[in-house]
Amino acid sequence: MIHGGDVYTDGLLQGRELIDYSSNINPLGVPKSFIDNIDEAINALTRYPDIQYRNVLKGLKEYIDCPEDYFVLGNGAAEIIDLVIACHKSLLIVVPSFVEYEIDAKKWGCNIEYSYLKEDINYNDLLKNEYAQLSYDYKDILNKLQKVEAMVLGNPNNPNGNIIDRGEFQKILEYCESNNKVIIIDEAFIEFTGDSRHSFVDEVKKYKCLFIIRALTKFFAMPGIRFGYGISSNAALIKNIKLKQNPWNINCFAELAARHVLKDSIYIEKSKEWIRAERPRFLKSLKNIYFIEEVFLTYGNYVLCKLNGLAFEKGLNSEEFYKTCLEQGFVIRKADNFRGLDKQYVRLAIKDRASNEKLVAMLESLKF
Amino acid sequence: MIHGGDVYTDGLLQGRELIDYSSNINPLGVPKSFIDNIDEAINALTRYPDIQYRNVLKGLKEYIDCPEDYFVLGNGAAEIIDLVIACHKSLLIVVPSFVEYEIDAKKWGCNIEYSYLKEDINYNDLLKNEYAQLSYDYKDILNKLQKVEAMVLGNPNNPNGNIIDRGEFQKILEYCESNNKVIIIDEAFIEFTGDSRHSFVDEVKKYKCLFIIRALTKFFAMPGIRFGYGISSNAALIKNIKLKQNPWNINCFAELAARHVLKDSIYIEKSKEWIRAERPRFLKSLKNIYFIEEVFLTYGNYVLCKLNGLAFEKGLNSEEFYKTCLEQGFVIRKADNFRGLDKQYVRLAIKDRASNEKLVAMLESLKF
Repeated sequence: MIHGGDVYTDGLLQGRELIDYSSNINPLGVPKSFIDNIDEAINALTRYPDIQYRNVLKGLKEYIDCPEDYFVLGNGAAEIIDLVIACHKSLLIVVPSFVEYEIDAKKWGCNIEYSYLKEDINYNDLLKNEYAQLSYDYKDILNKLQKVEAMVLGNPNNPNGNIIDRGEFQKILEYCESNNKVIIIDEAFIEFTGDSRHSFVDEVKKYKCLFIIRALTKFFAMPGIRFGYGISSNAALIKNIKLKQNPWNINCFAELAARHVLKDSIYIEKSKEWIRAERPRFLKSLKNIYFIEEVFLTYGNYVLCKLNGLAFEKGLNSEEFYKTCLEQGFVIRKADNFRGLDKQYVRLAIKDRASNEKLVAMLESLKF
Repeated sequence: MIHGGDVYTDGLLQGRELIDYSSNINPLGVPKSFIDNIDEAINALTRYPDIQYRNVLKGLKEYIDCPEDYFVLGNGAAEIIDLVIACHKSLLIVVPSFVEYEIDAKKWGCNIEYSYLKEDINYNDLLKNEYAQLSYDYKDILNKLQKVEAMVLGNPNNPNGNIIDRGEFQKILEYCESNNKVIIIDEAFIEFTGDSRHSFVDEVKKYKCLFIIRALTKFFAMPGIRFGYGISSNAALIKNIKLKQNPWNINCFAELAARHVLKDSIYIEKSKEWIRAERPRFLKSLKNIYFIEEVFLTYGNYVLCKLNGLAFEKGLNSEEFYKTCLEQGFVIRKADNFRGLDKQYVRLAIKDRASNEKLVAMLESLKF
């Protein structure tokens, strides 16, 4: 098992009422604007989709405010990640991060460099009851960029949820722009930050080196639909990716979703209200759990936690914790298959208020 | 425009009632078994699909009667065609055929050989009111196979609709099995033959050299759903293809379709009844059209026609014919972008009785 949260193999969904904290999906569920219009997709089933997906591009253009030729569409972000990596012979991967970057880079025979996030525990901050951070090592990234054609990092990054610091990143951006290096920023979770200024899409027009990845998967709660997209003003790169693609790679339900949910302002606003309220509340509760040593600052809808060192030495690792939670009806994400993390780390989704309260109450009741 | 029937670019679907004879989709439409169960897919949207697609494989196993590990699943047959071709450095393509074989082979830098179908017009047969044939050139195929790692051909082949002659093919099968060459048979239209004995799936267990491609696209009338699959007992080839794939490549609606429509025996039987009745009737009517010189024998739900030589010399080519039909409310398929065919050829779908009668009546009324 290379991906987390394989609830099918583990048989977790068979006949048990479990609350899934391993998968980071918006708890508001499928947007009503999709369900309300599903007949359009059903009626389109017997036709091949528009091979140029013009209506989808129109919808993206309105959502992202970029020209239509900046976009490349994928059967999930997975296809976009795969193909943009396939365009490069060497890749710097900021880790820990989504395991697929590394799998794809190896598949295409890329030379891989890694830059590890830094654990930044400022004791003054902690006294003020703030959170530890896992941060990008900007110096290390700049240094290692010399050896590669491209780099990939998450914004917010998975599994920790921290975002790129614009000031610190500027040097990297300028260096890549001047030296024809490509920066792939995976913004699969960006809408959960609640503030569009955290995204780098506005820089795409100015910087050809940028390639941003987005998807409907997480924020619009549709991993089953398979729709992701890349955004770049680098016409050669976009063309290169498109040449690798198969025709009709977007199914008619994904087409429908892209056309409707991106302009569903009610869903978008409700989701942002939920995450703005629930994230600080949930993090604070987790911080009070005695066997959790660190709760890392997150801008996403998930939170990375480090188990208490003493408890860890006595045998409380992510495996044990996973099993215990499962007995209590919760699936959590062991984080040790993220490069750079060990069995002291677990990741929890941030869900609706009621579920979060249940999880916290359960955690408070545990004794190790 | 490389693919036929791009009704979106041509603006054909905008506000006009056109009958589409350019796209070969089962006129019975989306199986009721899919629509009736669509809530299952809607409820699955917020979960990632099973990364191993166990329920889909179970359904395929029952439909095809092969072990589950013989299958590889694709986001449409397009993905399977692309990836199986990617596994080979050289490819013999039987042409004219689906243009995607050649596009993919070029994309992957394959050395390409072509074997052309032979126009087989037996005048004794024609006197008996039978049909001309475009047939595989088995000798030429056997000869050219020496130069390549793999070959691809359609069964029935598109655009002509003829099927492989088992007796003639045996030598090719034995040669490929003994010499580690791969035979890719695209059976996207096989169910329309109405007789499962025309398929080579039963040979898959015996011959490792075979790789069969199938899809829900044509017979189950769901090009929008994107679901195709490959079948082979060549474990190394299946593994090689899977390594090239992205996770979660099948969306939850395609998953649902695969699980339900393949066992929808009412739909399957009705469809076979329709094609058995309509195909001979439609072909016979076309044969009586004075400006159609040849109607080629077909086992598919489409028929290739050769325009009359005299009319052709006077300017009636596929372009002219296309325009005239369009004025009359019908979209037909010009066949000159199939390698080996010129503007004397057009392809027509076989549709429901009422539409076919309308088309024939329109054709009968034309004067060139």
